[in-house]
Amino acid sequence: MHEGRVGTPEHLKGTEDETLKFYALGGLGEVGRNMYVMEYKDEIVIIDAGILFPQDNMPGIDFIVPDISSLEPKKDNIRALILTHGHMDHIGGVPYLLEKLGNPDIYTALLTEKLVLKRHSEFPHLPKPNMEVVKAGQTIKLGQYFTIEFFNMNHNIPDDLGLFIQTPVGNMVHTADFKFDPNPLYGEPANYPLLEEFGKRGVHTLVCESTDAEDEGHSISEQTVYENMEIIFKEAQGMLVFGTFSSMINRMQQIVKLSEKYGRKVIFDGYSLKTNVEIAKEIGYLTIDKGTQIPIEQIGNYPREKITVIATGALGQESASLMRIVNQEHRHLSVNKGDSVVFSSSVIPGNERSVQYLKDMLYRAGVKVYHYQMMDLHAGGHAKKEDLVKILDLLKPKFLIPHHGQYSMMVTLGEIGKERGVAEENIIIADNGQVVHLTPDNWWFDKKSVQTNYIMVDGLGVGDVGNVVLRDRQVLAEDGMFVIIAVVDTRTGQVRQSPDIISRGFVYLKEQKDLLSLTRKKIRQIVESEKARPLNIQYLKDNIRDEIGRFLFQRTERRPMVLPVIIEV
Amino acid sequence: MHEGRVGTPEHLKGTEDETLKFYALGGLGEVGRNMYVMEYKDEIVIIDAGILFPQDNMPGIDFIVPDISSLEPKKDNIRALILTHGHMDHIGGVPYLLEKLGNPDIYTALLTEKLVLKRHSEFPHLPKPNMEVVKAGQTIKLGQYFTIEFFNMNHNIPDDLGLFIQTPVGNMVHTADFKFDPNPLYGEPANYPLLEEFGKRGVHTLVCESTDAEDEGHSISEQTVYENMEIIFKEAQGMLVFGTFSSMINRMQQIVKLSEKYGRKVIFDGYSLKTNVEIAKEIGYLTIDKGTQIPIEQIGNYPREKITVIATGALGQESASLMRIVNQEHRHLSVNKGDSVVFSSSVIPGNERSVQYLKDMLYRAGVKVYHYQMMDLHAGGHAKKEDLVKILDLLKPKFLIPHHGQYSMMVTLGEIGKERGVAEENIIIADNGQVVHLTPDNWWFDKKSVQTNYIMVDGLGVGDVGNVVLRDRQVLAEDGMFVIIAVVDTRTGQVRQSPDIISRGFVYLKEQKDLLSLTRKKIRQIVESEKARPLNIQYLKDNIRDEIGRFLFQRTERRPMVLPVIIEV
Repeated sequence: MHEGRVGTPEHLKGTEDETLKFYALGGLGEVGRNMYVMEYKDEIVIIDAGILFPQDNMPGIDFIVPDISSLEPKKDNIRALILTHGHMDHIGGVPYLLEKLGNPDIYTALLTEKLVLKRHSEFPHLPKPNMEVVKAGQTIKLGQYFTIEFFNMNHNIPDDLGLFIQTPVGNMVHTADFKFDPNPLYGEPANYPLLEEFGKRGVHTLVCESTDAEDEGHSISEQTVYENMEIIFKEAQGMLVFGTFSSMINRMQQIVKLSEKYGRKVIFDGYSLKTNVEIAKEIGYLTIDKGTQIPIEQIGNYPREKITVIATGALGQESASLMRIVNQEHRHLSVNKGDSVVFSSSVIPGNERSVQYLKDMLYRAGVKVYHYQMMDLHAGGHAKKEDLVKILDLLKPKFLIPHHGQYSMMVTLGEIGKERGVAEENIIIADNGQVVHLTPDNWWFDKKSVQTNYIMVDGLGVGDVGNVVLRDRQVLAEDGMFVIIAVVDTRTGQVRQSPDIISRGFVYLKEQKDLLSLTRKKIRQIVESEKARPLNIQYLKDNIRDEIGRFLFQRTERRPMVLPVIIEV
Repeated sequence: MHEGRVGTPEHLKGTEDETLKFYALGGLGEVGRNMYVMEYKDEIVIIDAGILFPQDNMPGIDFIVPDISSLEPKKDNIRALILTHGHMDHIGGVPYLLEKLGNPDIYTALLTEKLVLKRHSEFPHLPKPNMEVVKAGQTIKLGQYFTIEFFNMNHNIPDDLGLFIQTPVGNMVHTADFKFDPNPLYGEPANYPLLEEFGKRGVHTLVCESTDAEDEGHSISEQTVYENMEIIFKEAQGMLVFGTFSSMINRMQQIVKLSEKYGRKVIFDGYSLKTNVEIAKEIGYLTIDKGTQIPIEQIGNYPREKITVIATGALGQESASLMRIVNQEHRHLSVNKGDSVVFSSSVIPGNERSVQYLKDMLYRAGVKVYHYQMMDLHAGGHAKKEDLVKILDLLKPKFLIPHHGQYSMMVTLGEIGKERGVAEENIIIADNGQVVHLTPDNWWFDKKSVQTNYIMVDGLGVGDVGNVVLRDRQVLAEDGMFVIIAVVDTRTGQVRQSPDIISRGFVYLKEQKDLLSLTRKKIRQIVESEKARPLNIQYLKDNIRDEIGRFLFQRTERRPMVLPVIIEV
């Protein structure tokens, strides 16, 4: 769909400064780390600043933030940062990026503001962000070139804002993450007439999320989830535990309502979940009758069949509430035969095994388990194929840029766009860093892409773990390490005493005395056969690394990282 | 279902030697590492000897074999090892276990024999296994107590054998891995009349696989897969690449047939796949017209639209054919716009991310991708709920032992059994190592379980990687290591020169000169503040480990493994 479009078309040469530039520092061809940039002349508006969670081959990494090195020199041009909603893959980068971007004004909805401020409070050394709360229906003008009208979208967190953006080349709609829900639990139902009205005004470019483009049909309504949950409330004999995510305010509201209807007290468990509950209660997004919520310490005061627990850890995360319950490491909670546990979440690729472990442990305990294979207990937050068809039909965009999905999902949304009448040549499948030039009637990729490396956060370090450190971690994980310390008498070239060996993760040394003494002997031979004076230490070290590495491989078929140290005395 | 059944019931005390003992060294509550033991008095028959593939938290481990330490002292009692079919999770342990079991006779079908012998050829130091090929319909008597009649089951590899076992306490049916296929591609369709006849003879215990018990409906027939594949052959413009597993002989036969029908040459790629193809051809389980198969080097001699490639790597495995193609590391193969790639496999939990990576790379290359979300391109090998209902109805067992599935799947099969009329108290959910005593009318768990540790294989080492080594690998992977070497003058207690630091996987040292020099200073302080003479080396090392560990954490919020070495001169 996008080939042969690199470089300015001949008849438009020289107009590059009159184009709207759109590019992403994250969020194209990946799920997470959303950050999009709109640039016209010397004005820049940024949409979202999220994080990406690390993959299996990134041990020790906490998460990955966008690479803003291309924006730093232009930070004075930044007119605003817009945050569409409060999920971590849209706001998690704020504390790491804000200062480097010159602390631009942030526009966002109420709940998102609260979540950003809460997270920011964990970084006391940072200046307070400049935040302005906006509402659906409100319009703001940013600089000379951008006017943004916010509108409601449904998602699985309240206060999800879509953007209708007037730009010098035409109107752009940015969908944010969304689904259409005719019966949402909180907020307005999908506003089709407004979208139709946008369509009538004319949509030049639709920037549309593609996460669930490969799934047929419509998104499940929260109403369906509610009805299925009610079946469980009717069946449940003992304690009812719901595993969910800490951002699922809507789901929690459902569970609270049902608990009130069926006479159960509600306990919230998990640090981030409890904080989010307090925020949502404070701004009136979560309503709980007086007396419904009880502190966990009072669990013993009520019969089990009168208790609902809403806990984190539906994905089987190591330190979350559900995992601690199952491993009997939880101070207050345990589950017994007769209790029920509900997994109210989808399974995220990569988490299946941990979820299966949780399930097995619960079955072993005789707990009744409800999960997504049995009934719809979770509605995803993303538009499936039929919703995407609907938005395309309502907005009738000239250009389509799929975002927020793996590459295969963006291409699939592109194909849906084609089916719904977007001209094939106007479907723009871009990668992070590819700069799209948009004119009223044309588009092309700039010949130069901006830099969008993975900036990895590990502890206090941002970007200091690069490929070298990561590769070392991978090697260390595979077969461990083997440090050799030889004290060599510089005059005689003899190894003093027995060489020290420090090895971890390679073999269980206590059971490998023979291997160790053979290795020591070999080290001594290598060193003492070296006749050059003074000793060529680097050469000797390379020699030891190669020969001992080979020797250990012959003996074990493992390749620990061999690190020789020569100490001259 | 199984509670309150531990220990011999009062009225049966003293009869423990007259019971049939059934237990598993792997394969209950896990998918893989199948190994079941039947024991009556002094005679033992073993069913399968498989491996389990390692989980994410087992870096460097090749696979896991069953723990046969409980069998070794009784190896003279072993009458036979039966291998139900040729998948690695049923035969992969043979080279590691056979000698320790006293090289018992192995009974298995033709294809399985060939696969075992092929694998064995990679272990030239081992004695040849004693193998006897059996066929469906054949009956063998083993010792005094066991008579086994083999029967055909459908699976996704040919020569899958179910077992009808006459024992002193009654007839046991062991299903092997199976599904019911009325239209299999190779071999007989599901033989319902025979199973019904077994039911009439009376089935005391059904040992039934549970892998897909949580999935509703029937297994997909290979016929459906064939029809969907044909649609792809009709649509395909360029080269057609099928990603599959090396053991999927049936699937390869389908693809070969269709290639012949649509005038394509076939190339097989991937080491294990090619070996299996040769084995299957040799014994007539894979038939290919003369001239259809071409060597990969001749790919250039034919137009792309006349080529089918059958390759390994549908699960996104690192070094498999598909991954090498996509990463442009393949010597002969590449894919271009216009080609099609078909993922003819299910996605195994834990592999989703690699598969998504493959898909994205293919979409980037403009390749048409077909996968399971689009149509049925793979039929799993396991019985779904309706098939399990069917076998229960045909066999009408008194006792039911679910096997080969995660714990939750075994419990789900138990519930299906209850629905189909097995008495709840006769449904036996056992874990690996739990010894089930069976009498004609009763069952109970022995108070003592046999040992069933994970025996991990890493390179040449079998069982030498234990928890210590594994935990070290996990720690090293998280935040790397930090070795400190201080040469101390025993007389003065001074540190000679600057302490050596060797660190990998922690921070990028070249950019951390300050941190390093501060650390060196701190080490020197710790050592030189120690006044005791002679130096208490262990105390000093502990001190350095603790203080430097704390210091590095403060500075980085990372916890590398700190390993101090003191060299006294």
